[in-house]
Order: sequence, then structure tokens, then C-alpha cells
Amino acid sequence: METATGLYYVEQHSPSMRFAYRVRRPIFSGKTRFQKVDIVELDVFGKTVFLDEKIQSAAVDEYIYHESLVHPVLVAHPAPRRVFVAGGGEGATLREILRHNTVERAVMVDIDGEFVDLCRVHLPEWHQGAFEDPRVEVIHDDARKYLFDTEEVYDVVISDLTEPLEEGPSQLLFTREFYAGVLDRLSPDGMLVVQSASADPVYADFVASIARTLEELFPVVRVFWAFVFSFQMPWSFVVASRRVDPALLVEKEVEDRLRERGVEGLRYYSPELHPAMFRLPAYLREVLQKGRVLTDQDPYVYPD
Amino acid sequence: METATGLYYVEQHSPSMRFAYRVRRPIFSGKTRFQKVDIVELDVFGKTVFLDEKIQSAAVDEYIYHESLVHPVLVAHPAPRRVFVAGGGEGATLREILRHNTVERAVMVDIDGEFVDLCRVHLPEWHQGAFEDPRVEVIHDDARKYLFDTEEVYDVVISDLTEPLEEGPSQLLFTREFYAGVLDRLSPDGMLVVQSASADPVYADFVASIARTLEELFPVVRVFWAFVFSFQMPWSFVVASRRVDPALLVEKEVEDRLRERGVEGLRYYSPELHPAMFRLPAYLREVLQKGRVLTDQDPYVYPD
Amino acid sequence: METATGLYYVEQHSPSMRFAYRVRRPIFSGKTRFQKVDIVELDVFGKTVFLDEKIQSAAVDEYIYHESLVHPVLVAHPAPRRVFVAGGGEGATLREILRHNTVERAVMVDIDGEFVDLCRVHLPEWHQGAFEDPRVEVIHDDARKYLFDTEEVYDVVISDLTEPLEEGPSQLLFTREFYAGVLDRLSPDGMLVVQSASADPVYADFVASIARTLEELFPVVRVFWAFVFSFQMPWSFVVASRRVDPALLVEKEVEDRLRERGVEGLRYYSPELHPAMFRLPAYLREVLQKGRVLTDQDPYVYPD
Amino acid sequence: METATGLYYVEQHSPSMRFAYRVRRPIFSGKTRFQKVDIVELDVFGKTVFLDEKIQSAAVDEYIYHESLVHPVLVAHPAPRRVFVAGGGEGATLREILRHNTVERAVMVDIDGEFVDLCRVHLPEWHQGAFEDPRVEVIHDDARKYLFDTEEVYDVVISDLTEPLEEGPSQLLFTREFYAGVLDRLSPDGMLVVQSASADPVYADFVASIARTLEELFPVVRVFWAFVFSFQMPWSFVVASRRVDPALLVEKEVEDRLRERGVEGLRYYSPELHPAMFRLPAYLREVLQKGRVLTDQDPYVYPD
Repeated sequence: METATGLYYVEQHSPSMRFAYRVRRPIFSGKTRFQKVDIVELDVFGKTVFLDEKIQSAAVDEYIYHESLVHPVLVAHPAPRRVFVAGGGEGATLREILRHNTVERAVMVDIDGEFVDLCRVHLPEWHQGAFEDPRVEVIHDDARKYLFDTEEVYDVVISDLTEPLEEGPSQLLFTREFYAGVLDRLSPDGMLVVQSASADPVYADFVASIARTLEELFPVVRVFWAFVFSFQMPWSFVVASRRVDPALLVEKEVEDRLRERGVEGLRYYSPELHPAMFRLPAYLREVLQKGRVLTDQDPYVYPD
Repeated sequence: METATGLYYVEQHSPSMRFAYRVRRPIFSGKTRFQKVDIVELDVFGKTVFLDEKIQSAAVDEYIYHESLVHPVLVAHPAPRRVFVAGGGEGATLREILRHNTVERAVMVDIDGEFVDLCRVHLPEWHQGAFEDPRVEVIHDDARKYLFDTEEVYDVVISDLTEPLEEGPSQLLFTREFYAGVLDRLSPDGMLVVQSASADPVYADFVASIARTLEELFPVVRVFWAFVFSFQMPWSFVVASRRVDPALLVEKEVEDRLRERGVEGLRYYSPELHPAMFRLPAYLREVLQKGRVLTDQDPYVYPD
Repeated sequence: METATGLYYVEQHSPSMRFAYRVRRPIFSGKTRFQKVDIVELDVFGKTVFLDEKIQSAAVDEYIYHESLVHPVLVAHPAPRRVFVAGGGEGATLREILRHNTVERAVMVDIDGEFVDLCRVHLPEWHQGAFEDPRVEVIHDDARKYLFDTEEVYDVVISDLTEPLEEGPSQLLFTREFYAGVLDRLSPDGMLVVQSASADPVYADFVASIARTLEELFPVVRVFWAFVFSFQMPWSFVVASRRVDPALLVEKEVEDRLRERGVEGLRYYSPELHPAMFRLPAYLREVLQKGRVLTDQDPYVYPD
Repeated sequence: METATGLYYVEQHSPSMRFAYRVRRPIFSGKTRFQKVDIVELDVFGKTVFLDEKIQSAAVDEYIYHESLVHPVLVAHPAPRRVFVAGGGEGATLREILRHNTVERAVMVDIDGEFVDLCRVHLPEWHQGAFEDPRVEVIHDDARKYLFDTEEVYDVVISDLTEPLEEGPSQLLFTREFYAGVLDRLSPDGMLVVQSASADPVYADFVASIARTLEELFPVVRVFWAFVFSFQMPWSFVVASRRVDPALLVEKEVEDRLRERGVEGLRYYSPELHPAMFRLPAYLREVLQKGRVLTDQDPYVYPD
């Protein structure tokens, strides 16, 4: 235990649990107009991004989160050409989207342009040049405002947003009103996927409420999960669509679509794993019954 | 964050990551002949057991670990009557075994009788009276020695042991020699399941080596996983058998067997989840290629 | 460093410094009507009392604090017979007062009767029976209210109060109005001593303001200091009087008075140390110039 | 307590006490041939130096340590012209020595040239140009070897060395053999001062043993102390001489000597404080009786 001291990054993971990660090398610390940004190289997770002192993604396994967010839904869609990303600062969500050769256009709207610029400079392993791809457009704006103003139609909308903290900017991006706006911008086969935070037995009411809210608007709503090591938690996602049900896709179909679209080199997601990701444990199915409808008047406020 | 101070339990999860859990109520701290035992009630996990200052199980989700350890293998076995548990101090593994009405006898051999007695007193939510069940025999002895000496034959052997730390007593319970002894005690349909620690991208060489070692001896070896929140990690298990392959069981078969055997009230494991538990992510399948054969001469020593 | 984990008590010593003390044995944790009380046995300090998760006193060196609070002022007074203590829950201040055989009566007024009762039971090493001494009267009331209502006159008044935190009850016990009330209750040779928290270069404005406030009312005001190991800080006290100046007492006089009064067995305070305690470092003398007058309208609020 | 998370420096202050300091800005982290060096800007102490993850000195109060190490002894010496420093990497000891206009030559021998170079670059507030003073010679060598080889004679020798840790290089610089070598190099009025770590009630056996060892060789040995806030402890020093007793110097003499030598701008040490620094508390006088003689065969090994 010779490394129990020295430079550490301390995260208050919940009001009663604190984590301390040994820091190998501090890289960047500063504040944008919207949030505090720390980029540090940790012994255990490699290069890691913290926003407002909460872990966002880590080199060791950012692929688990980003592959899980993107591929189950893109594979389920028969031909995703236009993709919209709300949030997505690091550029890794774009990176995964662009693996599908069906994609012609990917629009990413992240309110924090300074953070996106920091990612361009400090996180090349994340974006891997995605920001320079000619199919990509990056816009620094409020994603809700942008989506409500545009007349463009998308095949897939990806909500890659931080949790709606008390003073944070994302509370109104997890409400029925926002999701109604998304539905309005989706093509007939269109699909929405939302990163919906922890799927553990204690804190899963957030995902339950997102699912419950989407069920008000979309005929098909499915929850799936993955285990992101650096988040120290099982992680949930909600997918919603007008008619496509991603949970019904079998291994062979996933394999064929990945091959046809030239998707290679995945490290977490696989044809074998796709159907398994939609099979949930009993406790989570039970918690999912207890969500409430989130509205602009009464949005979800994530416990700090 | 008003609860950032006060009484905490600090766990050095790996040499470069430390966790601090807010303590609501300390219950017991002491040393047995074999290990340090702390039982505390944590804000985040409820009543929790630490052995040698490493988390063992927590009220909030001990069922995830214990249901995953027991049911996939007991369900896969056509008619488990005699079950052997190596370790299993808290009694929750017995509790899950006894749910199957096929079981006629369950022998638990745990070297640390003082710890088992502490569990009887302090962890009634874990054992729920299992130690008093007439089908159960509890023996305080070295499980390897006991198994090598007995002439009894078992349908299922469950290795519910702590990781083989430097000075710990369990190093020789994860070797080819030990597993050969287990094989010798198994009935023709007999199966072995081993709790094999973390399945995350960084620390999975332990499970890889257990699987590799078992492949030397058993025709069928399968790895499966679960997400144990209080371990902060995806968790792996290895199952080995002479001929039964648990990964081939489909949802309907699981459902039938649970019903026939009167197994009810599960909170994690389910017919739907069974096949999904055997579908592994790409990174883990890759790591599993890299195990080495563990022997008495060269056992696995878990990093402290 | 084998003891870096396990049960710890975590104290946020200031907004940017956190201490974690290894706990050998938890003794009591609970809430009175006024404050949270934790009594734990620490590896480093032995039995230790925390109020609202701030360290109060520790077996290893409570004598440093209590001897420093009591003896410089009692020795300086020519014949202390009646002593008043505001606060003083643990009973160790009484213990030190009673060493002087001149003392005929000691009145202690502590608002938190439940805490005093906890100290009676759990801290016998502190009070050593002082509560049972026939010269002692213990009253559970607001010390300000009691002092303003009484007509009794005291030779020495000792302010042994916790720092005036935001929501705490002691803000109005560090103001000009309160000290004017104290002055009114003092005999002609009467003296007041106030524990006035840290004397370090960063946080010494509290003692500076107490001294400045007392200078409005008392002809003689002196600051002295001690080093209380378990507080991790040099500690300050302010003494005020109508005419007696404790800083002028020389070693021989202190020695004579201690002997005459039968004071024995001291472990910190000594005739040799008395004059030295009033000699302050340059930085502290400078900070002492910068205090402000504390009033009921504008009291000191200690940073949490 | 909004700052309870983020980048921290964690120090294991003793086996059962851990400190965590909020980091405002990391400045340098690396290893020299001899030790790990971290220079960070802390919220609470400003710029701070850690060697092997133990705090060395901090901007907020390095003057307390350095003024206490240098001035009591230099003032006590009637005319210090040649001064030798063993250790002293940061250059602040030199800075204080050079304030005395009697000093003609100051030789500093620090084994870690890389660390001294880091201090030149990163700690200008400490050395304030002292390394460039024409009276100064800096040598990178083992101080014991250098002193045993030289024929130069010194008026004052200052031992400004880190504690003798298990694997550290300084064990043989706290022994009778080394001090005999020092005595051999001292002029008739010559004096030695040794920084001798904590003076608290728990860890003071180190200073006791240094004092005991020096008493074997020097007619006059005195212990004095100061309160160094960033060390969180009262701090001890031992002074030894052939005939000069620094404890006998009175305020007026100190004042005169400081003025005659042009020493100005001190922030801790003062004429008033000089005699008080030699007045020790009862517990420390008691501990000082219990030291043992340190030898090359049986040196002091500081608990890590």
C-alpha cells in the first residue's frame, strides 16, 4: 500500500460515499462559463475527465459507455443517416456514430464550447479526429433551443447529457416537453436514446422516471444496461421509438448489420451482447414501475 | 454535502483507489484466529461486512451476489440433491441453496468458526435461519482437507471463498490440484461454481486464470457475470462440469425449473436474465484468453 | 502503513483541509437537543470527544487545554474563592479549578444537560468526580441568561465555550454586551478568561476580535497561548481584569501560589511556563491589531 | 463545505492519522535520485513542498520554522562569522543566516543537488536570492563526509535535515559519532542547532534522544520549541555548545544584537519570544528524561 498518499482526486460519489483516486499526472484544471473541468491522469483509470468534480469518462473504459450509448440504437435502426447528439462534449459519441457507414450527417449541439475545445486539445484518444470529419457539424448552443428551432429531421437522436443537478443547465432536457420536441424531429423509423445514469438498487429512480416519461409519448420504450467500471456502477440507457424495438434484434441480425456497415474494432458491444443488454434483473424491473412523469414544471433534480 | 464528515469506513480498494463510506452505526469489530472482522451499518449500503478491511457483502445487494453464485448452476443441474459449499460464512449461500426443494443435504465447510458464529448473531438477514435447517451441516475445517478426506459425492460444489491474498488461507483453494480433488467428488452430472472476483477491464486476470485452470480438467467451462453495486465492480463467476452446459439453458427451461422446485422471491436472478448472464463483453472475452494454469507450486496471489 | 484503512473518524478541519483519524473503538454516537456528540477511542489520541463533528478534547492532551484555561488566571488572582464556568461540559475545567484549595464555590452553567450527562458516564478521566464535589453546582441553562439574572459575584469567570458557528447557540456569548454583563458580576480583583480558538497565522482573527472587544470594557487585557496537539494548532486564550495583570507574574510567585494552594500533578502548566505563555510571536501580535468589536448586532460567526 | 472534493494532497501523518489538503494548483511532481518531490499550491498553506509525501515547508509559515532554527542560536553566539548548514535544500535557512551582517561565509551541504535546483526554480519566496549571495557556497555531497574531510572551523553548525526514515539517507547524521565530528569543527564559542521534529506528547522521543546524545559530548545542551502551523505540531530544536547558553539571554540582549547586526523584518522570532522559547511544558521536560544515546550502530529510525 505504498501509494496511499500523495496527489489524489477526491470525488463525493453520493452524500455518504467518497472516492479518492491516486493522480499520476494533473493535466488541466479550470472553469468554463458552465462548469468546472479537471482532466487528470489517474493510476487506476488513466486519463480521466471530471466535470464539477464528478467523473465523466476515463480512458480505461470510456468505450464501454460510448459503445453502449451508440451501437444498440444505431444497429436497431434499419438505416441511420442523420444523427443528432445533445451534449457529447468529448467527441467519443461522434466517434462511435461515424463507424456506421450509413451515416451521412451528425450534428452535435453542446452548450459548452470551451469544454469542447478543451476536449479537442486534451482528449485526442476520445474523439480520434471525429470533430474534423466532413459529415460532422458541431454547434455551441442549448440543445433544446436548437432542436425546437430546426426543421431538420433525424433518424437517431442521442441524449448524452450530464445528470440534471440543482444548478446545472440540463434539467429541462429530461422532460416530457423536451422529448415531445424530439419526437417531432424524428423520421418515421426514428429512435431516441438517453443516457440515464445508475442502474443500481439505490439510485435507479432517475432511469425509472425517464422511462415513464417517454412512455407517455413513444409506443416503444426499452431500458438496457452496461457496466462502466470507472463509474463504479451498472449504467442504464433508455431507448424510445415510434415502431422499431431494439430488444427484439437477435445476435445474427446484429452481426450482419455491423458487417454491412463496416463497424469494426469494438471492445465492449458485440452481437452476442446486444440481446443480453436488454435483459434486466428483477430489482431493476421492479424499480422501473415506480417512475414519475418529468415535466418542465416538475423536472428531475439529481441529488448532489 | 453535510454528511462529508464523522464516522467513516475506509477501504483501500486497490493500491490507487480508496473508498470512504459514511457509517451510520458501528456494530462489531474484532479479530478471529483467521481474519479481522468489521460489521458496520453504512448510510449507502446498510449493514455491511468487511473481512480484513475488504468489503464482503452488504444488506443492500448481498442477494445479487448470492443469487448469482447459486441459482445459475443449481438451475442448470437437472436434480441437485447434495451440495457442498467451501467458505460461505454469512450463511446466505446456504439460504439460496435451500430454496431448491430438490436439495436433501448441504455441507458447508468454513475454516473460520468464530466468523460463522458472528454471522449467526449479527447477520440474521443473511442466513435467515439457514444454519438451523435440518438438511444443513456446518463444519469448521479447511475445505480442501475436508474434501480430500471425505468419500461423499456431491451434485454441486460451490466455492464461496475470499480472494487468495498474500498471507490469506485460500491460495491453495484456487489451484489445479484442488479442482482435481473437487472433480473426484462430483457426481456424473456434477457441477462446480467458483466466485472469481472482478470482471472489469483492469483486474480480470484472476477470473481468466481460474477459467484456464478449470479447462485443464473439465470438458465444459463457462464464465458468467453480474453487477454487484456494493462491490463497485462487475463480478465474475466460473462454472465447470463434466457435461451440463448452463449457457445453453433458455428462458423457458429456467422458468419451469424454478417453478417445479418452488424457488420464489428472487430479486436479481430471473429466467430472462439467465442466458444474458453468460453473454460477455468483448474486452472480457479477450482477457479470458490470457489466463494461466494455477498450481500449488505457483498459485494466484491477489494484489493487496 | 498497514493501518491506512478500516474505521476512521473524518473531520473537516477547515473548508480545505480534512483529517482522518483511525478509530480503535467507537463508544457513543448520538444527538442531544443542541448538538451531535461522538465519543470514540482513536489510535492517535485515545478517547476523544467530537461535537458537531469537530474535535473537542482528547485523552492524550485534554490537560494541555484545561490546565492552560484555568491555572494562569486562577494563579494570577490573589485569592479565587468563587468561580463561574460558562460551558465546560466535560467537567475537566471544574477538575482543574478544584485543585486550588482557595476555591469555595464553582458554578458551571452549560446549556446542554444531555451532553453533561454523557460526560459523567463516558468521560470519568476528564471530570474525575468533579461533578460530585460539594463545592460544585451544575446548572443546565443558557449561561448568558443565568449570569444576567444572578446577583452573585465571582472572582473568576471562565468562558469554556465552543466556537460561535452559524447555527450554534454561542454567538451572543462572545459580544460586548455579554462581557459587560460579566464585568458587572466580577469582584474588584475579578478576572475573566476566554478560550479563543486558534492562534495560527491564518485563522487568528477570532482571538483578535475577542481581545479588541474586551479592551472596550476592561483596563487589563492579555492574550496567551498553548499548543494543543490534538487540535493540531497553537491555541489562544484571552484574559481580562479590572486591575490584575497575569503577564507580570514571575516564576517564583507562581511557584509559591501553587504550593500554598496545594496544586500538584500538573502536566503542562508550570511556574517556568507561566510567563512564557504570555510572550507571543510577531505574526500574532500583528494580527491582534486587526480585531473588531463584536456586538449582539454584529457577532462573530465562525467559518464552518 | 463546497470544496470537499477535487484535487487533494493526501499525507499519512502517522500510521493512524491522515491529512488531505485541497490543491489549488499542482506545480511540480517528480523524483530525484534521493527522494520524491511534490510542489503544490494548497488552499490552506499556499505553495507547499512535500518530500517523500511528507510536508517539508509551506509558504504560509515556513518563516516560523526557519526563523526558529536560525535566530536563537545565531543571536546567542557573540559573533557568528562562519556558518555551516547540513541539508537546507530550500535555501530559506541560508536566507535567515544572511540577515546577520556578522556572517562572512555560509557553507550549505545538501546531498540532493536536483532538489536544490528545483528549489532555485520553484521556490524564489523561500531562498529570495540567497543562493547567489557571494558569502554562500553550496555543495552537493553527503554532509557527514564533507564535514569529516574539511579542516575548516565554524561558529555555528545547523542541522536542517529530514527525519531519519527507514530507507532514508540521514540516519547517520543524528548519531554520537556524527556530533563528535561536528564538535571537532566548532570554534571555541561554537554552537550546534538541530531541528529535532515534533514536541508533542506522543512522538517526542526523537528529540529526547538527540538531546541525550548531545549531552554525552557538549557541556551545554538546551531544547527549545516553536509552533509550526503547517506541521500541525509543536516543533522542537536542540542547541548544544561548548560554553554559550542561549537560554540565559534576556530580552534586552536579544534586541540589542538584532539591531547591531541589522536583522529586520522577522515575523515569528522576537526579543520577547527568545527566552519563552526555552521554557518547556511539564510533559516535555518529562519525556526529555527518557532519551537514549544514538550511535552509528544503533541510530534512530523514524516511524514511517
